[in-house]
Amino acid sequence: MTVAPDVDTTTAQDPGERRPTAAGKVLAVLDAFGPRHRTLSLSEISRRAGLTLPTAHRLVRELLSWGALERDGEGRYSVGLRLLELSALAPRGLELREAAFPYLQDLHQITRGNVHLGVRDGVEVVYVEAIRARVRNPVSSRTGDRWPMHVTGTGLVLLAFADSQLQEQVLAAPLERFSALTVVDPTELRRNLAQIRQTGVAVARGQITLPDMVVAVPVHSPRGEVIAAISVVVESADARPRELTALLTQASRAISRALDPGRRLPLRPVPRQ
Amino acid sequence: MTVAPDVDTTTAQDPGERRPTAAGKVLAVLDAFGPRHRTLSLSEISRRAGLTLPTAHRLVRELLSWGALERDGEGRYSVGLRLLELSALAPRGLELREAAFPYLQDLHQITRGNVHLGVRDGVEVVYVEAIRARVRNPVSSRTGDRWPMHVTGTGLVLLAFADSQLQEQVLAAPLERFSALTVVDPTELRRNLAQIRQTGVAVARGQITLPDMVVAVPVHSPRGEVIAAISVVVESADARPRELTALLTQASRAISRALDPGRRLPLRPVPRQ
Repeated sequence: MTVAPDVDTTTAQDPGERRPTAAGKVLAVLDAFGPRHRTLSLSEISRRAGLTLPTAHRLVRELLSWGALERDGEGRYSVGLRLLELSALAPRGLELREAAFPYLQDLHQITRGNVHLGVRDGVEVVYVEAIRARVRNPVSSRTGDRWPMHVTGTGLVLLAFADSQLQEQVLAAPLERFSALTVVDPTELRRNLAQIRQTGVAVARGQITLPDMVVAVPVHSPRGEVIAAISVVVESADARPRELTALLTQASRAISRALDPGRRLPLRPVPRQ
Repeated sequence: MTVAPDVDTTTAQDPGERRPTAAGKVLAVLDAFGPRHRTLSLSEISRRAGLTLPTAHRLVRELLSWGALERDGEGRYSVGLRLLELSALAPRGLELREAAFPYLQDLHQITRGNVHLGVRDGVEVVYVEAIRARVRNPVSSRTGDRWPMHVTGTGLVLLAFADSQLQEQVLAAPLERFSALTVVDPTELRRNLAQIRQTGVAVARGQITLPDMVVAVPVHSPRGEVIAAISVVVESADARPRELTALLTQASRAISRALDPGRRLPLRPVPRQ
C-alpha cells in the first residue's frame, strides 16, 4: 500500500503504527483478507493490518455496517456483498466480463478447456472470468485470481502488447518458476514476446503445470487498443493450437463488437440507497 | 451508511460535512459510484460524496494507489480491479458462484432462460450470478444487481425462508410496483410467502415485466440453512413450471453438495503482496 505524501489525518492514539492515513487504515483492514485468509477474527485482522485492537474494532464495525465485511455465527469476519456490487461497476471487471461471457461460454463448450479472460493490473494479470472444465485441472483458476504475466497465456499476450517500459520492468525483475518448463530467462522471454506481438497469438506449454497447453489472443477495444486477453487451457496431448487460435480469434472479435456502447437496456434494478 | 456512535476521528477541516468518520469518508467516495454513475470526475465524486474537493482529492489518490479506483485517459474515475479481487473472497459472493456455476450453466443450456443466483442482503436480493439468454429480455439482470425481494423469484424464496421479523419489516414498508401484475398488497404477498415456504418453490408471473415467468427454489448450505436461491426466467408463453421446478431442485441439490468444503486444489495463484 502506498501512502500519499501529504498525510494529514494520522491519529495520535496509535504511535506504534507506521503512521498510515485514516484511509490507509481502512484499506489495511481490507488487505488483511486474501485467498488463504478468507475469514478472520478481529485479533487476526488487527495483527495482519498492523493496527491496534481498538482501531481495528472501530474500522471493522464501520465496514460491517456499510457491507464491505460480513460477520458469521462464530464472530469471524469475511468480505461482504457490497464489494461484489461495487466490483460489478468496474469497466475492466464485471462489465467487460458481461460483454465477453457468451463467447467465453461458447469457447468452453467447443474446446472443453479452461477459458480465461484476463486484464493487466500493474505487472500482473487478473482473471475477470475463469470458466473451468468439469475434469478439474490441477491449477486453480478463478475469477479474481492474480498471476505473474510470464506464466499465463493471457499475461504473455498483455505483456507482449504493453509498452516497452513495462516490459523492461517485468524482464528486469526475478521471473518466478512454477514448473520445469517455465521460461525464466529474460532473453528467451523477450524473444517470445516479440513473436507474440508479430503473430498476435501466444502458445505456451507447461508454464505452470506440465500437461497444460495454453493458447491466448488479445481483445481490442472498439478503438483498437489491447484491453484484455482471452485464453483456452487444454492438456497438451489433446491440443490443436491452430484450431484453438481460430476459435479464440473469432471470439475476440465478437467481444470487441459487443463492447460497443449504446446497447443499454431500459429497465434497471434499484440502485443502492 | 451508518456512522458508529463513538466517532473519534472526525477531521476539523470540514465543518460543513455531516461529521462522518475518516472511514466513512472513504466509503462515501466508493458510494459515489453506481449503475448510473460508473465513471465520475473528481468534482462529481466530491459532490456526490458530500466531501470538499481537497478531501475528495486526497482520498481518491489513496484509493487509486491501492487499486480500488482507476483513472482513464480523460481523467475520469471508475471502480478498479482490486475490488474485483477482494469480492472474489466473499463467501456469499464469487465463492458461492464458483460452486454453483457449472449447474447454473446447465440450467441455462437446458432452459434457454435467464438464470440467477441470489443471496439476501438486508431487505434486498443481490445477484451473485446472472446468466442471460442470447435473446435479450428487456430487464437488466447482471451479477451484482440488487432488487427488492418481492419482485424477483430469488427474492421471494429468500423472503419466504427469512425469519418472521425480517418478513414483517418488508411487508410493513411500501412495496414498489414494477408492472401491472406486481404484488404490492401485503396480505396477498404474505399468503404467497406461506405457500412458497410450504412448497419450497416460488412461481411468479410478470412481477417486473409482463411476458416473464420465474421459477425459483432455495439453495441449502451443507448444514441445511437456506443460504441462497436460484431461478430461471422464461417467457410465460413457453413456460413449463413443473419441469423448471424439477430442474431447479436438481441443480440446487448439486450446488449444496459442491459447497462441501475440503475440495481445495493444491496450486494457488500469487496472493497480492
